[in-house]
Amino acid sequence: MNTFLQYNPTRLYFGEKQIQQIQAELGDQQRNVLVVYGGGSIKRNGVYEEALHQLHSINANVFELSGVEPNPRLTTVQKGVEICKQEHIDFLLAIGGGSVIDCTKAIAAGAMYDGNPWDLFTQVAPVENALPFGTVLTLAATGSEMNQVSVITNWDTHDKIGWSSPYVFPTFSILDPHYTKSVPLDQTIYGIVDSMSHALEHYFHRTDNTPMIDGFIESLLRTAIQNGPKLVENPDSFQYRETMMYISTTAFNGTLSNGTDGGDWATHRIEHALSAVYDIPHGGGLAILFPNWLEHVLEDDPSRVKQLAINVLGVSEEGKSDKDIAKEGAKALRQFWNNLGAPSRLADYNIDDTHFTDIIEKTFIKPGVGTYKEMDKDSVHDILRRSL
Amino acid sequence: MNTFLQYNPTRLYFGEKQIQQIQAELGDQQRNVLVVYGGGSIKRNGVYEEALHQLHSINANVFELSGVEPNPRLTTVQKGVEICKQEHIDFLLAIGGGSVIDCTKAIAAGAMYDGNPWDLFTQVAPVENALPFGTVLTLAATGSEMNQVSVITNWDTHDKIGWSSPYVFPTFSILDPHYTKSVPLDQTIYGIVDSMSHALEHYFHRTDNTPMIDGFIESLLRTAIQNGPKLVENPDSFQYRETMMYISTTAFNGTLSNGTDGGDWATHRIEHALSAVYDIPHGGGLAILFPNWLEHVLEDDPSRVKQLAINVLGVSEEGKSDKDIAKEGAKALRQFWNNLGAPSRLADYNIDDTHFTDIIEKTFIKPGVGTYKEMDKDSVHDILRRSL
Repeated sequence: MNTFLQYNPTRLYFGEKQIQQIQAELGDQQRNVLVVYGGGSIKRNGVYEEALHQLHSINANVFELSGVEPNPRLTTVQKGVEICKQEHIDFLLAIGGGSVIDCTKAIAAGAMYDGNPWDLFTQVAPVENALPFGTVLTLAATGSEMNQVSVITNWDTHDKIGWSSPYVFPTFSILDPHYTKSVPLDQTIYGIVDSMSHALEHYFHRTDNTPMIDGFIESLLRTAIQNGPKLVENPDSFQYRETMMYISTTAFNGTLSNGTDGGDWATHRIEHALSAVYDIPHGGGLAILFPNWLEHVLEDDPSRVKQLAINVLGVSEEGKSDKDIAKEGAKALRQFWNNLGAPSRLADYNIDDTHFTDIIEKTFIKPGVGTYKEMDKDSVHDILRRSL
Repeated sequence: MNTFLQYNPTRLYFGEKQIQQIQAELGDQQRNVLVVYGGGSIKRNGVYEEALHQLHSINANVFELSGVEPNPRLTTVQKGVEICKQEHIDFLLAIGGGSVIDCTKAIAAGAMYDGNPWDLFTQVAPVENALPFGTVLTLAATGSEMNQVSVITNWDTHDKIGWSSPYVFPTFSILDPHYTKSVPLDQTIYGIVDSMSHALEHYFHRTDNTPMIDGFIESLLRTAIQNGPKLVENPDSFQYRETMMYISTTAFNGTLSNGTDGGDWATHRIEHALSAVYDIPHGGGLAILFPNWLEHVLEDDPSRVKQLAINVLGVSEEGKSDKDIAKEGAKALRQFWNNLGAPSRLADYNIDDTHFTDIIEKTFIKPGVGTYKEMDKDSVHDILRRSL
């Protein structure tokens, strides 16, 4: 194992009616609260109303920023920062999925910084503070509700950047599985893919002697594989929503990286570049790219992919070479996601190789892509080509 | 799943040389620190010296309480509370295993209370505050380094009580596997048993739809079963110490109970009563009692014991009844611990049925023993009788 700090200060309230905890969390002083959300879905399903009821019951001064995009944009962050500064906001409440939470993290950090917030995400300036914020989660996918990570897109330059800071752990997060029931089926499927990708990318580390954490990752993935198809069949099931919601938080809240080198996030890097150019859903991009990343890396060294194939994807060993077992694993994963309803090829989004050079450039916007296998431009090109 | 709050504010520093973190944790102000430890072993193996070096480097005023017992006693807690009040202690540093940490938690709470600290542990008075404290762990067993639980013995009345409070999460804990290398073999074995017991007791809950957490528990237990015999064979191995140390923390830091009813801790309750009467090692008592608890509960309902037998203990299913599979599981667990070097019968400690009535009385010192199976006095008697 590597040396590590295990620390996650977020209070996660999980289950029915947990939105009531907002009162106890915020009630001890007068607050100026900025509520951040996306489209109107939270108004249709009642979540907005329930959250606002909580805020009004403690006499908070409520301000609003709506219209956060699925890939949240710098311009929206800047709008939020301006409101925070003008209205002396002292707490932010994100209501939505990962995009809304990521945007809220960016606003929280940007509000405590004097320049353009983009400086913070490109590491031109360090994040040295942030406003406190809570979240009410309505989509199980990114894990942003219990971690310090955020992804922001600069649509002027078509750059999409992941950044992180210990200052942007949510103070609290409310996870009521009922709130995810109104998520459209395609978003539900992308959420499953995104959560599983987080676990899979954690799995591809190069650290010795991590048997318990490896076992946790395999166990989480097996649960996702058992639960995913049932959820897609029965999108109104509280039980399957609940399982999925807790999987997606656990897949990216630090549990799966304690003591490892953190895993290999090359696929996320390539996908961010891909969806910065084409604005496709993140989970859709991952479903296409990750099996091809597996096929790319197993060419040099099939050992870890083989282990995944056997322990998670149910591939049998008998009479097969390591490489064949690993290849079957990659194929099984692609098939599993495809059966759920996710795309398996770039062609499914009418994407061809026209902008490959641009995507490759953007993948390397920050140096160092891949750790289990370090990528160069040719490697990324190979993965894109396999994905056509 | 049940509604739950997932929250653990302890900063866990894991790995070689992490003791250096004490400076950063405490360094920003003048401190009066009470160092709490047990016998002299931390002086022989260098841990005491390293910790004191850290405290002196930040010019802390250091006070000491040594001689904490393996089952820490109220009288020692009272001694510590007195020092805290007299010397205006503002931080405690526990150096040792679970007993030292449990004692430090009790002192931390007692120092903020005006009456006899025993009131706090018997719920006569609520814990409403505690001094902050850190820990340097030297024995992998109880998990006390990252939870809010403590066990204190009142030797006047021969009562041993577990209590808990959110105020007694350690601020930080230092886990350097090197520090556990000098632990005697019997203590190492009892640590394995204690950690596994925590996971096992978590496993016996009655909450529906907890597949991921159940998988985590099974995975942790399989890792303990793979690692335990290697550690006992090679007690100087950093690798096996490391795995064991992280297992024992994870087995009792909240990870394994999120969303469940918390599991069934009847065996711990009976063991506390047993070792309050006989002062035997906690892990030794558990190794004797838990397989007999399994045999007791499988008589009514073998389903969960069967699942444990198959998924964790490698028992094959073919041609056997559920009850037979479950019985084989209980036997396999007893055999596994016995092979490690743990006792399997009360007779191994020369204990007969003389004080059974007393042990049963003490088991019920707080009402409600057992949740997976609620115990009455006859049930506890049956388990003790099976353990002879």
